[in-house]
Amino acid sequence: MTRDAVTWERPTLKNVGTPCLILDRDRMDRNIRRLRTRLDQLGVALRPHLKTAKSIDAARRVMTSSAGPATVSTLKEAERFAAAGVTDLIYAVGISPDKIERVLVLRATGADLAVTLDTVEQAQAVAHASRQAGDPIPAFIEIDCDGHRSGVVPGERTKLLEIAHALAEGASLRGVLTHAGASYGADGDDALRACAEGERASAVKAAAILREAGFACPIVSVGSTPTAHFAQSLEGVTEVRAGVFVFFDLVMAGVGVCQIDDIALSVLGTVIGHQPEKGWILADAGWMAMSRDRGTAKQKVDQGYGLVCDIHGKPFPDLIMSDANQEHGILSIRSGSNAPLPDLPIGTRIRILPNHACATAAQHDAYQVVCSDDDAIKAVWPRFGGW
Amino acid sequence: MTRDAVTWERPTLKNVGTPCLILDRDRMDRNIRRLRTRLDQLGVALRPHLKTAKSIDAARRVMTSSAGPATVSTLKEAERFAAAGVTDLIYAVGISPDKIERVLVLRATGADLAVTLDTVEQAQAVAHASRQAGDPIPAFIEIDCDGHRSGVVPGERTKLLEIAHALAEGASLRGVLTHAGASYGADGDDALRACAEGERASAVKAAAILREAGFACPIVSVGSTPTAHFAQSLEGVTEVRAGVFVFFDLVMAGVGVCQIDDIALSVLGTVIGHQPEKGWILADAGWMAMSRDRGTAKQKVDQGYGLVCDIHGKPFPDLIMSDANQEHGILSIRSGSNAPLPDLPIGTRIRILPNHACATAAQHDAYQVVCSDDDAIKAVWPRFGGW
Repeated sequence: MTRDAVTWERPTLKNVGTPCLILDRDRMDRNIRRLRTRLDQLGVALRPHLKTAKSIDAARRVMTSSAGPATVSTLKEAERFAAAGVTDLIYAVGISPDKIERVLVLRATGADLAVTLDTVEQAQAVAHASRQAGDPIPAFIEIDCDGHRSGVVPGERTKLLEIAHALAEGASLRGVLTHAGASYGADGDDALRACAEGERASAVKAAAILREAGFACPIVSVGSTPTAHFAQSLEGVTEVRAGVFVFFDLVMAGVGVCQIDDIALSVLGTVIGHQPEKGWILADAGWMAMSRDRGTAKQKVDQGYGLVCDIHGKPFPDLIMSDANQEHGILSIRSGSNAPLPDLPIGTRIRILPNHACATAAQHDAYQVVCSDDDAIKAVWPRFGGW
Repeated sequence: MTRDAVTWERPTLKNVGTPCLILDRDRMDRNIRRLRTRLDQLGVALRPHLKTAKSIDAARRVMTSSAGPATVSTLKEAERFAAAGVTDLIYAVGISPDKIERVLVLRATGADLAVTLDTVEQAQAVAHASRQAGDPIPAFIEIDCDGHRSGVVPGERTKLLEIAHALAEGASLRGVLTHAGASYGADGDDALRACAEGERASAVKAAAILREAGFACPIVSVGSTPTAHFAQSLEGVTEVRAGVFVFFDLVMAGVGVCQIDDIALSVLGTVIGHQPEKGWILADAGWMAMSRDRGTAKQKVDQGYGLVCDIHGKPFPDLIMSDANQEHGILSIRSGSNAPLPDLPIGTRIRILPNHACATAAQHDAYQVVCSDDDAIKAVWPRFGGW
């Protein structure tokens, strides 16, 4: 009597179900080392933004200690990371009054969670809740360094001091915080250096105003991935926040902060069809797997929904995901290029580099972790979403 | 000794955590009734596409029976819905050979799951696997009715018959299937009627070719939300697939398939800041809550990342989410409008209608279900994602 041996199939890029999210751990570790080395030389701490990875496993590789410091964009991130032992946290989105109770509950478990705000109303609400709870919630005043989004312009001395005075009625002013979001649209190294200096100078100026008025302002927190990599001086800054540098993406490559082969994140897909008259290859990864992010549309090189690589992560010349439906990706040669359409039979595995790592990762519930020169999936790191 | 009474706070739009996804069940039910009535009059069955809702609770309201029929876009949807008793299923994305084993496993549990394909290679792979398993997998040949994506052009008689012959070696040809994806870009009612007629005629023509060659082709399946609402005749068609009609969205309103007040889905957010000099209101719902979908950017009325309403779902004149970061939405008056910026203090609750219901819903793990004229949250319907 014969029977087939039962063999366990080792998970690899060739047999894992597609679409799925692939993380090249070697590239990620290299990206982390690069920024850590840079910030060590500039003499400031790294407070990584965990909104990109939303994974305990990834967070532990990027943080300088298992307790942080770290930055989060939602209270759910704060709760999940705190439960995993990350206690030094800033919630870097403006606090709404109805969320303060949840902050207090998490702080009562021992997490040192700080909030961010830029109005007197918020400061009053935080101070009031702090008094009621007998817990002075640490708060950062958000500074607007480039008109990108929220924050107090550092020259608005009166408003800055009104917020600080309102906080003093029960809360704890921990410092100032700014984010040079406009740096994502900067053109060239000089422009990036200027963004970084503007970010630094704004935060330092605001801190000086507060200190002159008698407020201790121990932390001066700045950061964005482009400015973190281009700052020439961080004098007066105590910490840098950055998130997407862990994985990098096509938008960051377009800005000039990284090279294509630094991008650690990709979506693994499978070829499911061809429309040869149109020069199209169809894949089972559409916008649900890539996200709807078209961040490179405004850049010099429009990468469509992503740059297509072979299974080992090597880009095919000028092959992009030019359009996407929910579960279909349409792959074609970039408009204007004479590169040949590669022959990718049905069933061929491909990897697609994303425009925006934060958006693409958010479409998936786990990272399939690989090393750079190996098809084997070494680990599966869960990630979470939601609020 | 006195103590406060412990009161349970009934969940409402005013106290639920934000951002979250709100589903107006009254509007949804009305949308379902409208299409059902229409298709009953045209004498065809409705096979709803469950990729929009990805919720058992929503599926049960839209399907004509608890067992289906229904359409899915991923095998995970097939597995989840089959586990809930939905057995009549079409997986309407081209099958890749490595997914066939998973189809067979699900079919072995009793689900009548059919696959879709448009190449001889796929047909051979499905026929081979069917023979090996002793289970003739039902298959649809996908027809390209408008050059939108995948499928065989109905005039390609030779290719159609080659696929049918390849399937005959073990699988089961169940019919033809097409999707008028180009209808999303149609301009005006006449253009929509023409899309619907083109979709119908293509599928019927392909079925006729197959039947003339001796292949039974019992099912002729067409569908998209715009064509389902504009078809004048569905002669020769046996079933209609449509998905987004359940919720509708701003893209569908822009196409002219629904009115703004038919849109059943919205994201509830909270005001967290102001930049009065710029005319901006900041909210705690950014692209993570809305998705990166900018489907109205190509339409006559660009709705940004969504149209902003009050807590009851009534739109503020010309107030849109004009830009979005991960967890920040920037609300402002539409360019060119003279409408006043409403006074929305910090903490104000707002609801934002989405560009694309499928994409926005996918950013959330549950629906908070409400009725049209009531703030109370009546139910929480979980939804799933992934593959």
